[in-house]
Amino acid sequence: MTTTDLTRLFTPHSVAVIGASERPGSIARRVVENLADHSDLQGSLHLVNPTRSTVLGRPCFPRIADVSPAVDVAVVVIPAAGVVEAVKECAAAGVSFVVILTSGFGEVGDQGAEEQRALTRIAAETGMRIVGPNCPGLTNIRDRIGMTFSPSYTGDLTAGPIGLATQGGGLGRTVLQAAERGLGTSLWASLGNAADLDVPDVVTYFAGDPEISTIAVLLEGIPDGAAFLAAISLAAAAAKPVVALKIGRSEYGVRAIASHTAAMAGEAAINSAVFAQFGVVEVDDIDELADVASLLSRATPPADAGVAIWGMSGGAVSLCADAVGQAGLRLVELHEDTKAKLGAILPSYAALDNPVDITAAGLAAPELVLQSLRVLAADPGVDVVLAPIPVDYGDTTVPVANAMVDMQLESTTPLLPVWMSDRRGPAYSVLADARLTPVHSVSKAVKAVSRWAAHGHWRASLPLGGQPLPMIQRPSLRTSTPAPEVRTEVAAKSWLAHNGIPVPKGRLTHTDEEAVAAAAELTGAAVLKIVSPDLAHKSDIGGVRVGVRGGDQVRAAYDGILDAIGKAAPDVEVLGILVEEMIDDVALELIVGVHVDATFGHVLTVGAGGVLVELLDDVQRRLLPVQRPTALAMIEQLRVSPLFDGHRGGPPLDIEALVSLLCRISDLVTAHPEIEQLELNPVVLRAVDAHGPSVVAVDAVVELVQR
Amino acid sequence: MTTTDLTRLFTPHSVAVIGASERPGSIARRVVENLADHSDLQGSLHLVNPTRSTVLGRPCFPRIADVSPAVDVAVVVIPAAGVVEAVKECAAAGVSFVVILTSGFGEVGDQGAEEQRALTRIAAETGMRIVGPNCPGLTNIRDRIGMTFSPSYTGDLTAGPIGLATQGGGLGRTVLQAAERGLGTSLWASLGNAADLDVPDVVTYFAGDPEISTIAVLLEGIPDGAAFLAAISLAAAAAKPVVALKIGRSEYGVRAIASHTAAMAGEAAINSAVFAQFGVVEVDDIDELADVASLLSRATPPADAGVAIWGMSGGAVSLCADAVGQAGLRLVELHEDTKAKLGAILPSYAALDNPVDITAAGLAAPELVLQSLRVLAADPGVDVVLAPIPVDYGDTTVPVANAMVDMQLESTTPLLPVWMSDRRGPAYSVLADARLTPVHSVSKAVKAVSRWAAHGHWRASLPLGGQPLPMIQRPSLRTSTPAPEVRTEVAAKSWLAHNGIPVPKGRLTHTDEEAVAAAAELTGAAVLKIVSPDLAHKSDIGGVRVGVRGGDQVRAAYDGILDAIGKAAPDVEVLGILVEEMIDDVALELIVGVHVDATFGHVLTVGAGGVLVELLDDVQRRLLPVQRPTALAMIEQLRVSPLFDGHRGGPPLDIEALVSLLCRISDLVTAHPEIEQLELNPVVLRAVDAHGPSVVAVDAVVELVQR
Repeated sequence: MTTTDLTRLFTPHSVAVIGASERPGSIARRVVENLADHSDLQGSLHLVNPTRSTVLGRPCFPRIADVSPAVDVAVVVIPAAGVVEAVKECAAAGVSFVVILTSGFGEVGDQGAEEQRALTRIAAETGMRIVGPNCPGLTNIRDRIGMTFSPSYTGDLTAGPIGLATQGGGLGRTVLQAAERGLGTSLWASLGNAADLDVPDVVTYFAGDPEISTIAVLLEGIPDGAAFLAAISLAAAAAKPVVALKIGRSEYGVRAIASHTAAMAGEAAINSAVFAQFGVVEVDDIDELADVASLLSRATPPADAGVAIWGMSGGAVSLCADAVGQAGLRLVELHEDTKAKLGAILPSYAALDNPVDITAAGLAAPELVLQSLRVLAADPGVDVVLAPIPVDYGDTTVPVANAMVDMQLESTTPLLPVWMSDRRGPAYSVLADARLTPVHSVSKAVKAVSRWAAHGHWRASLPLGGQPLPMIQRPSLRTSTPAPEVRTEVAAKSWLAHNGIPVPKGRLTHTDEEAVAAAAELTGAAVLKIVSPDLAHKSDIGGVRVGVRGGDQVRAAYDGILDAIGKAAPDVEVLGILVEEMIDDVALELIVGVHVDATFGHVLTVGAGGVLVELLDDVQRRLLPVQRPTALAMIEQLRVSPLFDGHRGGPPLDIEALVSLLCRISDLVTAHPEIEQLELNPVVLRAVDAHGPSVVAVDAVVELVQR
Repeated sequence: MTTTDLTRLFTPHSVAVIGASERPGSIARRVVENLADHSDLQGSLHLVNPTRSTVLGRPCFPRIADVSPAVDVAVVVIPAAGVVEAVKECAAAGVSFVVILTSGFGEVGDQGAEEQRALTRIAAETGMRIVGPNCPGLTNIRDRIGMTFSPSYTGDLTAGPIGLATQGGGLGRTVLQAAERGLGTSLWASLGNAADLDVPDVVTYFAGDPEISTIAVLLEGIPDGAAFLAAISLAAAAAKPVVALKIGRSEYGVRAIASHTAAMAGEAAINSAVFAQFGVVEVDDIDELADVASLLSRATPPADAGVAIWGMSGGAVSLCADAVGQAGLRLVELHEDTKAKLGAILPSYAALDNPVDITAAGLAAPELVLQSLRVLAADPGVDVVLAPIPVDYGDTTVPVANAMVDMQLESTTPLLPVWMSDRRGPAYSVLADARLTPVHSVSKAVKAVSRWAAHGHWRASLPLGGQPLPMIQRPSLRTSTPAPEVRTEVAAKSWLAHNGIPVPKGRLTHTDEEAVAAAAELTGAAVLKIVSPDLAHKSDIGGVRVGVRGGDQVRAAYDGILDAIGKAAPDVEVLGILVEEMIDDVALELIVGVHVDATFGHVLTVGAGGVLVELLDDVQRRLLPVQRPTALAMIEQLRVSPLFDGHRGGPPLDIEALVSLLCRISDLVTAHPEIEQLELNPVVLRAVDAHGPSVVAVDAVVELVQR
């Protein structure tokens, strides 16, 4: 990713269409029509086609080189076979940006992929930037410029604060059609195969665009994790929330994507963890992308959002309250003044507590709607008002909708109407025209509010000055002081211990008598383990003995291990037998690891270990580096975290020691990015009143990148 | 619940309106208009009002007694104060059913509740059945009879196979408005405060109604669990699925309901468990009620439904595939013939595997839509086809919709269109008019298919002859051989052991030497416990000692317990000290219990115990009695069930013994319904190769109803 300014890409003064045509129904004709008849270009439109002198009554140039001065954007709609040559000509002619709508590149096989790489090279070598190929192009709704073949473009008239960046085209238009309920989009870029510019470039531009407040992205793959993170960090610095739908999250979805585009789907769990860490609001569905982007564009969520529910049907507010409760959102306890004011306005049988049910009286007396909503929105504890509308009563519902709009004009507290009916009469249009973006079901509305509220929580958790950028270093990068060879457990533990990671007491022995002496130095029972650079699964072949006590048992264990290895794996190099203290007062087992994600680099994982691994999908992941607050958050967000307070009245576990271990691992890997894999499994926690360290890495594997 | 035939309630020949009026805008006028102008009554409509001779040009009778012969249904729309008297007159006049629309009864306070009880008494004493009060009445769409004040009734023209029963009125109409996407409702009864007839009576009627195939219910409370279960059992016997939305499932929702109606919200977890046990398909939202009811009415789900995804956008089918994968649904592996046929039809760049992506080629050549859908639906493994439509391209989308309708006319495999756009052009109407009931988002569509599929799984799990009815007995019922007094742990364990429940070896002792002798009979260490009918929490006050070995330790423990109790609770009655084997080779701890739910009677619970209680919400509940298959299903559905196969290569646990314990508990409580509470906590499981029984109830409490 570079930082080319994209202003003249989205808002070009002059545009050329390479391959202009007037053939009815052709893509090229629609491109010309969209630009000539339905766009407000500040400058001029030039048509290029060597086989025609005019197209739709406009003069036609034979070659882009004939167009002078050079255009800001050339839209390419010629067949795939001629695209590379045409793009070269554009670069030679001084064109700033090329938008290639043509398909038949990376998505169709090796030949197409080779052509696509040629496009990438042209961009890199000339500095001319490329959108596409295989995309519907760019849609600038606020300035009314359509560099796209879409016949739907002519209806794209609802401008607003959302910047939309997608790879594929179809689902982007689904988001645009949320204009039907009032969602306003400023700019939409569909990057297609992204031979050059991709979603991060567009997000970077949106971050600096003063007319865009909220960024929505639809991703099939994240080919460049560093670019993605840089872009969302810029958006975060500009206080613009990014809402993302990532497709290809399940095995089935990945399969579908693989047959759809060449994009790499990435590993869903890592993506989601990264999104959460960097404040990207992840959603599960297209309608949710619109729901959440709209709500975020309407109001900035506070740290701990309080929800009010308002309605005219007991059943509907109750259903809403159920969903709010199940989502873990907080229903506001209304201020006494609020209740008193509601009581003065509403009939005696109305419910004045939250949820507020003004009953069907509101249909007969619509002034009650505005009055009660006004009072509710003014309550100091209320950050958002959910307003379910279960039935469309046609014209009867219109005054209710008007009252909602009036309240929203007065108040900065966002009102979220829930239009529960499948019928959409004039009241729906009132809400949509006022940009209240009604949501279509209680469950989706509550999901939107949950995500909005969670984003507020994330914002509040940021340290002053924002989140540090992750390291995103490949393990192939060498450091000045490389990590030592750590091919065995003994070497790994020794190096970890040197770097402040607690490991069990013990030492490497080479005779049975050395082993007896080593065991005698320990307090309780011992564990004996074979040490060999060639053995990954020691215990499977008799290489580990636990609970060994006293000289005779140690000698027997020592000899037994050597016997077993001699039979099972006679050719391995044996460096000795590790004699270690056995930790038998285990309160909790965890797994701590670092691995390299192909997209995002080093990921730190901490999760429940032992028997709980099978039962709990209990893992927290963060990109490195992590510092104390993040490490603490990882631990607190584990499902096993209640156990840290002590189980069944037992003593608490040592969270601080675990935080410290995670931070030391982070420091170690940050200093040694050549670490490709590090696994401490298990890390055992002992009650803090136990003797010995309260957190111990009982086994350790460290793998460095092959040099 | 009695079994009055409700045919003449829903399809009356003659109807009277008590309180007929022509005052513009009045409820009474709308009732008259709905019946006079918008209904197809087989018989006659009679208006009753002592203050008028005609209403809207029709003659008016002063009293219901003047109407002869007696009407099938009298609709009461007079003010609350006169309702009881009017209803008495109806009963005296031989009216069969009364529908009371008037509000101001149980929902407004003590006086209203007293009037409502008077209505209940009239029904019980006269046999005349009552709907309401406080409801919008009955809507017979298929025969076009509206006994309701709703101004929306005139638009209720979409008849179909759904029977709808609700308590409150507003949300029922939300379901009716799903007619907009093709949902056809046959009959809708809103029971309001349900002074007499309630949802179970209506479900019972629907179960026998040949024009209704699927029953949808919206519940605020279940005041009579036995009636509810009887009704859904009748529906199950008639092979009619029941879909239910239960409002008041969270603390917030219960609060909202409490202020809304007098209905008791019940305990959500028990309700959901009962629904699952008896095949009621529970949903979370109103739109889901329509989604799932529609799909169930269109096709009976098989035991293990295979899903196909078909679309024209790679992004959309991929999003669908993600949702299918995350829901745990099974995406069908297409038959080779299917792929070959698709390959012959579709362009080379289409995706022929499931999900099938025919690409935008389908827009240009709509015949590809019908051909490919036909092939897909004919695949023997495909039970349902999900067809996402991401964008409304206006007229261009119409041939696509027509092709879907044509395919559905040919095939019994249900096609579920997912209309993802907020725009609803003519193609949407094509799908709605053909009753394909498009769902509005991918996530909701997949949720509907999941529930549909789960219902197929439930159907397949039924034993031949269907599910036995639960006992629904109140503990106050005495049995001929009452349970013995079991006020202490010793008594409870002794009785349980007598009934085949394994408990630890041990006996009650009265001197320290007896205790030493008892301990000497045990294999390992002993546990000593105080035995007293007055002590609930023995260990809190030093009444329990564990891990006691040898005579000296036993004596010390014995005396220590008596000392501790003597100091902490000097006045309790001490019956002795229980000396038991200590079970220290515990592989898994469970909790097994029975309690009496106020709505449904005896509920058996089994759940994870010990440390896992805090981390896993891992509980299975069933109404009693349970037999082997149900007991086994409870165990298999526990989240800890993977541990039964043995942990970390260890030996497996004894599922059979646990099944047997659950069945014995069920038998015991079924024979002794005077048991109010029974708790075995913990029940410990040992590896099957351990000595001693593999399942042991280590502690036990049994409480009988006070006689």
